[in-house]
Amino acid sequence: MAVNLADNELDTTIETLGPAKIEFPLKQNQSLGVEGLEQFKIFISDSTRVLKDIEVHCSMEVNETDTKPVTFEMAGPRKEIYFDPTKVKAAVVTAGGLCPGLNDVVRSIVLTLYHLYGVRNILGVKFGFQGLIPSFKHELLEMTPGFVRDIHDLGGTVLSSSRGLYSITEIVDSLERLNINMLFTIGGDGTLKGANKISEEIKKRNLKIAVVGVPKTIDNDINLVARSFGFDTATEAAAEVIRSAHTEALGAPNGIGLVKLMGRDSGFIAANAALAEREVNYVLIPEADFDLEGEQGLLKELERRLKLRGHAVIVVAEGAGQKFFPDMKEEHDASGNKKRGDIGVFLAGRIKAYFKEKKMEINLKYIDPSYLIRSRPASSSDSIFCGFLGAKAVHAAMAGKTNVLISQWNNVFIHVPIKAAIASRKKVNLQGMLWHSVLECNGQPPLINRQ
Amino acid sequence: MAVNLADNELDTTIETLGPAKIEFPLKQNQSLGVEGLEQFKIFISDSTRVLKDIEVHCSMEVNETDTKPVTFEMAGPRKEIYFDPTKVKAAVVTAGGLCPGLNDVVRSIVLTLYHLYGVRNILGVKFGFQGLIPSFKHELLEMTPGFVRDIHDLGGTVLSSSRGLYSITEIVDSLERLNINMLFTIGGDGTLKGANKISEEIKKRNLKIAVVGVPKTIDNDINLVARSFGFDTATEAAAEVIRSAHTEALGAPNGIGLVKLMGRDSGFIAANAALAEREVNYVLIPEADFDLEGEQGLLKELERRLKLRGHAVIVVAEGAGQKFFPDMKEEHDASGNKKRGDIGVFLAGRIKAYFKEKKMEINLKYIDPSYLIRSRPASSSDSIFCGFLGAKAVHAAMAGKTNVLISQWNNVFIHVPIKAAIASRKKVNLQGMLWHSVLECNGQPPLINRQ
Amino acid sequence: MAVNLADNELDTTIETLGPAKIEFPLKQNQSLGVEGLEQFKIFISDSTRVLKDIEVHCSMEVNETDTKPVTFEMAGPRKEIYFDPTKVKAAVVTAGGLCPGLNDVVRSIVLTLYHLYGVRNILGVKFGFQGLIPSFKHELLEMTPGFVRDIHDLGGTVLSSSRGLYSITEIVDSLERLNINMLFTIGGDGTLKGANKISEEIKKRNLKIAVVGVPKTIDNDINLVARSFGFDTATEAAAEVIRSAHTEALGAPNGIGLVKLMGRDSGFIAANAALAEREVNYVLIPEADFDLEGEQGLLKELERRLKLRGHAVIVVAEGAGQKFFPDMKEEHDASGNKKRGDIGVFLAGRIKAYFKEKKMEINLKYIDPSYLIRSRPASSSDSIFCGFLGAKAVHAAMAGKTNVLISQWNNVFIHVPIKAAIASRKKVNLQGMLWHSVLECNGQPPLINRQ
Amino acid sequence: MAVNLADNELDTTIETLGPAKIEFPLKQNQSLGVEGLEQFKIFISDSTRVLKDIEVHCSMEVNETDTKPVTFEMAGPRKEIYFDPTKVKAAVVTAGGLCPGLNDVVRSIVLTLYHLYGVRNILGVKFGFQGLIPSFKHELLEMTPGFVRDIHDLGGTVLSSSRGLYSITEIVDSLERLNINMLFTIGGDGTLKGANKISEEIKKRNLKIAVVGVPKTIDNDINLVARSFGFDTATEAAAEVIRSAHTEALGAPNGIGLVKLMGRDSGFIAANAALAEREVNYVLIPEADFDLEGEQGLLKELERRLKLRGHAVIVVAEGAGQKFFPDMKEEHDASGNKKRGDIGVFLAGRIKAYFKEKKMEINLKYIDPSYLIRSRPASSSDSIFCGFLGAKAVHAAMAGKTNVLISQWNNVFIHVPIKAAIASRKKVNLQGMLWHSVLECNGQPPLINRQ
Repeated sequence: MAVNLADNELDTTIETLGPAKIEFPLKQNQSLGVEGLEQFKIFISDSTRVLKDIEVHCSMEVNETDTKPVTFEMAGPRKEIYFDPTKVKAAVVTAGGLCPGLNDVVRSIVLTLYHLYGVRNILGVKFGFQGLIPSFKHELLEMTPGFVRDIHDLGGTVLSSSRGLYSITEIVDSLERLNINMLFTIGGDGTLKGANKISEEIKKRNLKIAVVGVPKTIDNDINLVARSFGFDTATEAAAEVIRSAHTEALGAPNGIGLVKLMGRDSGFIAANAALAEREVNYVLIPEADFDLEGEQGLLKELERRLKLRGHAVIVVAEGAGQKFFPDMKEEHDASGNKKRGDIGVFLAGRIKAYFKEKKMEINLKYIDPSYLIRSRPASSSDSIFCGFLGAKAVHAAMAGKTNVLISQWNNVFIHVPIKAAIASRKKVNLQGMLWHSVLECNGQPPLINRQ
Repeated sequence: MAVNLADNELDTTIETLGPAKIEFPLKQNQSLGVEGLEQFKIFISDSTRVLKDIEVHCSMEVNETDTKPVTFEMAGPRKEIYFDPTKVKAAVVTAGGLCPGLNDVVRSIVLTLYHLYGVRNILGVKFGFQGLIPSFKHELLEMTPGFVRDIHDLGGTVLSSSRGLYSITEIVDSLERLNINMLFTIGGDGTLKGANKISEEIKKRNLKIAVVGVPKTIDNDINLVARSFGFDTATEAAAEVIRSAHTEALGAPNGIGLVKLMGRDSGFIAANAALAEREVNYVLIPEADFDLEGEQGLLKELERRLKLRGHAVIVVAEGAGQKFFPDMKEEHDASGNKKRGDIGVFLAGRIKAYFKEKKMEINLKYIDPSYLIRSRPASSSDSIFCGFLGAKAVHAAMAGKTNVLISQWNNVFIHVPIKAAIASRKKVNLQGMLWHSVLECNGQPPLINRQ
Repeated sequence: MAVNLADNELDTTIETLGPAKIEFPLKQNQSLGVEGLEQFKIFISDSTRVLKDIEVHCSMEVNETDTKPVTFEMAGPRKEIYFDPTKVKAAVVTAGGLCPGLNDVVRSIVLTLYHLYGVRNILGVKFGFQGLIPSFKHELLEMTPGFVRDIHDLGGTVLSSSRGLYSITEIVDSLERLNINMLFTIGGDGTLKGANKISEEIKKRNLKIAVVGVPKTIDNDINLVARSFGFDTATEAAAEVIRSAHTEALGAPNGIGLVKLMGRDSGFIAANAALAEREVNYVLIPEADFDLEGEQGLLKELERRLKLRGHAVIVVAEGAGQKFFPDMKEEHDASGNKKRGDIGVFLAGRIKAYFKEKKMEINLKYIDPSYLIRSRPASSSDSIFCGFLGAKAVHAAMAGKTNVLISQWNNVFIHVPIKAAIASRKKVNLQGMLWHSVLECNGQPPLINRQ
Repeated sequence: MAVNLADNELDTTIETLGPAKIEFPLKQNQSLGVEGLEQFKIFISDSTRVLKDIEVHCSMEVNETDTKPVTFEMAGPRKEIYFDPTKVKAAVVTAGGLCPGLNDVVRSIVLTLYHLYGVRNILGVKFGFQGLIPSFKHELLEMTPGFVRDIHDLGGTVLSSSRGLYSITEIVDSLERLNINMLFTIGGDGTLKGANKISEEIKKRNLKIAVVGVPKTIDNDINLVARSFGFDTATEAAAEVIRSAHTEALGAPNGIGLVKLMGRDSGFIAANAALAEREVNYVLIPEADFDLEGEQGLLKELERRLKLRGHAVIVVAEGAGQKFFPDMKEEHDASGNKKRGDIGVFLAGRIKAYFKEKKMEINLKYIDPSYLIRSRPASSSDSIFCGFLGAKAVHAAMAGKTNVLISQWNNVFIHVPIKAAIASRKKVNLQGMLWHSVLECNGQPPLINRQ
């Protein structure tokens, strides 16, 4: 038996600002005391790593391969750290769309910096990266334990957010001018790309500023990140919406409940919510092509179902069916995301037109709950998870790690180079257990015309 | 001191099918037993009436007027009833849009008919009045206590619904053919108008069919009905949506949360939800005119607020601002409701255009939660209320009352002639406590340009 | 037809500190402006009164009686007020057990004083009346709009509370020493009795201090108060607990879910929650006697039901069945409430012992959710209601009314002399609609052995 | 670098009833069709295994050890199965205390058997193993897709449950007599021990009956099971209770909120809930010893805190502090669990007595929410998880695996021999990240007197 887990292109080495020679400030930990804390074998060594792939195949001979398995650096507190806590000035920024748990992560970063390391200079950057561009004149927030005490009860972000990255030069100028030596960025793919560029500019200028990302993606679509915070809360909320759509579908002759859910590139929320609230008949996600017209197309299929059952529920991820917008110019929003045609409104229109032509009465109820979902406070599960993410981010920064993000992988918290994470998107595997379960659950046909 | 409460045009006399000579079937009440039930002084006499107006003015002299005060017949069980329960065949119909509590009312009607009176023939009409039009071929449901046992846990209506009244002749033909002698209609203004016409056709044909309405209006806008079921649940749900809108408004530079709530003719939900979740800056309702342009108009006012505070929340009832749709043809939907221009989408567009022209970055989040609100199950308060409404409707029908609806007035359940209820709409009083409190609460200026 | 509503013993006259000669400070209302506010016909005259009883009997002849109907003074802002707002120093105290909505009332009092009248001196008394006893050394809170802004999102009371009244002399000494001329007491029967004594002491000393009560009773048992705040929220919460008890009862052989709910003297929560969540088989309230032993007693009846159905749900109000505690000394708690035997624990023990003797396996799950219910934040409906109560309390105090409480009666807000309210308790009418509906709903037999 | 993961005592070999030679019944999958299903590479081979330990240490040399890593068999559908689906008669039993998600697992087992394999004979055993003991005369339920359709919306278990295992001989006799060839047991440690004994008896009798367990433990304390269903829901519910306790603690002078949570042997719920709702000051779990008396004991510490802050929140797992019950006989409940002294009631009493002696007013509010937590319906996350567990259990049974349970490990579903799981309990690691975070979060001192 052998472990053959090679993945030759993936570089999981973590950048550092320099050697970590300062001792962890145990004395900060007042209630536990020095001995108290040392009893905890909490310190993680850089040489402790986590396997990326954990499936093995018994039939393979031992040593038939000598490629090394891919591993990740484990996250957590280091006994030797890079920064002198008394001299740290940290900044926290939240960027991109809202997501349940943002405040929980901010709270955890502040409390860990303050209580565990004794850092007293913690700035909140307002309105995403705008807050580091002087011309916007946003003030910086001084964040204390008192300020963050109850913020986890609120949805949204107390720092406010914005899309877009603005000038990397101006941002790094601001970091220099403010003497910030630790930047925590909580944001999605666009933010991580920005964090990567900022890190590179910092390196070019030979500054000692650690850049640590906490990946935020309500769509759960970031590469090498098994679970993203807020996804659990969003799925719960999305399942409730599907229940409403089902109630509406049952409430009128040929009722159709059509729900548009988040999912620009990946249909994880749509797929999971459909498994949680099992009244969905059609789940449309970006990964799975589907036809509207033709004998196997959605419209004809929907007609068959209505004639048979009298109602239907459709869930569509916002990035699904983009082939129906061939003229969509290659536009991008301020976060650098490619703009999407509005598949929800499009489908609603096409379905109505189809049945109007057929002179068949339908009652379509279109629901777009995105703002209601993403503005929720985090569930307990997400809240606890965010607490760990924030603490691990601080540990990484204090140890001098940079251009790194905190991820959970195989249930362990790890360091991932930001470059590796932004190289591609995580997608629903159309041959995998999740998608197969969705299709099983709702009995959904392929919706593709066979030639 | 005198009570001077005349209201000369209002006729509160209730129609009856004939004299009530049959004794209330006490024996049905197995657990309480005959003595058990008689101990309850629950029987209401037709001569017990409820004052419509209850304010008095001390300065007036006693007897300075001899006009009689307007009173309503009190609802409740009668000791003598009109129908022989063993021969009753009742039908229940739910019509119009969904509203929390529909199933609770259906459940209560069925259980009261079955257990209190011993009626065994209870039909559920599917898809509103469509279910009584033979060409639609909807089957009738036989409803039993077992069938309705848990339906109050579900949103929507187990009978399904539809808009529109179809042919009165065909409907009354169906009632005759099916030997139905008791029709319960749970629906709004359109349904009540239909029930009135059905009653008149029944009278013309000299049939002995009681028609009893339970007024359903999530907008709480039916005349002579102080509280309509589902309104409490809807307000709670609407308040949660406003909280989300506020979170979104805070989450981006110049964030604007714009929420469209139910309220075709009356702004009760918008006004109450704004009082419950006090982060609303502008409440726009059908009763209160407002300008968009000009120095006091909404757009300029919004600009001032954004410059001062950086975010804003707007709640607009769907029937507000209809003056902005001058070309809207006099169209009506199937329920007979005048079609409305979509003020939510209109406002979103106008606000975006205004600030685009001003080159001021805003982030508008438009939320239309109507389907999510109306499909909820009833709150406990609404559920209990629906239980009483359904029971009172059965008592009225059994006593031979017809063309009547069940209302709560001054906290007492009463009979109101359907004709009186459909004569006009209940509106938010712009000079009253509710609207004044809303304006106080959010500090909203008049939004009207003074000449 | 005549209105015969005499109730000769009830004195509804409201005490005042003196004539109201100061004009309502319209200028405070910045956004509305003077004209803005005057357009609202919001001012209430003392001569506007509200009928107590609103049922009339048609058979009676007009003027057959010349007794005057009992009426209440209507609550609301007066055009002429007693206090000069610039010289007002107000104090707010919350006393007794927690109840949903306490913070909403506090918030409304502060905002109305501040924004509508321009009062700038508003003190929060901590820990109930303890906060006015110097030896406890509790500091007073200076309350501003900023302080109360978000407190309605929290359960409990930001002022904290305590039971007990302590020395009336010391309390009035403190009011004098602090130059407080307006005391708002939010509390139950004990607190109102205290407020009455404080008012009398104030009168004796000829001080000009208005004492206005907002009645707090989660049990909804205060006389002449149709609806008390928090009751709606408590009923919703209690109904959820009953659902859990039902699930537990179904989950084991001969499962019994036994729930103890609030209700020291009156069973309103138990009765309403049982109507909302209809899986209760036995509702035991203080007003209705019941036997444990004997052929018709609860134990035998429960045995019959378990043999027939295999599970049962019992809801018991805390004040029910006190006859089973004959040796209970006449003890009282700090609020002056008579101490009760713990009927929940008692019943659990007796039921277990009964079936143990019968060698019949049962699985009893006893749930006491009181702290979980009363610590909830207010529902939207309660929150709005609390907003009105607080505002009306301020209007009453500013007009110089004293020894008065704010009540809702026949859906109108009124002034009730505290003396009238504390004269007796509101009880569930065993011959009325509520209790009859409960018995109907759960098919509960009398549980009393007939001789 | 080497992978050194030996764990020599752990045998992870799965028992089987015999070789799997029957083809997976693809034709059952109507909507996907044969090709449809084959496109999914869903079939798992027995030779695909999952690593137990995934940490590696870079410093180690490759091949310095030749011990094989411990691996688990991966769960999932097999292309060749053991049972002919048309001849399968399956039985499902739920045993032990309630737990959120029981109905979801039952539902998934029934739907997977029915739709994916075409099994038509599925029995629900009522009241746990009682249902297989003839003398109890419980009837068996015939379960169909219609029966289980909506049961995931309900808390508890539609099969009902019981504690205790009764005679293994009688149970296996019943399985034989009923021709059951597949037994699914959903239960905790006691149930798994029973399932193991049943499997051994089946083996002894040389019967071909597969026994597959789905581990149910709201405490999340089963060995080799990383996540147990219902734990997520329970943590969410427990966090809400802690919030109430905090509100109560704040609401009175020296308020103490004392919450007893589930956790007979392991404090996972207490620890996680305390991390989710961060107002807890002391978390007491079975794994961590604590003193009551003495300078560092809980009582003195509590006194210090009350004097400093005026309120406190304590969370105690039910199995904590058992050293305070030295006289507790070695009693066990029907499930074989050792009986515990009631630490919640004990602590409440001791705290009250301590402060009474000190003549210090405290207000202790004791909350025991266990029945309210465990009777909840599953959260979306748990519901989805249960769906997978049930399906994997069916795949295991159809493939002829037996004496096996379904577990999630490193985020992958695996087969674990029941024997391995019942060998020991999973405990909170007092040196690990979870417990350290709890102590960090609430600043809790050791509560142990140093000699």
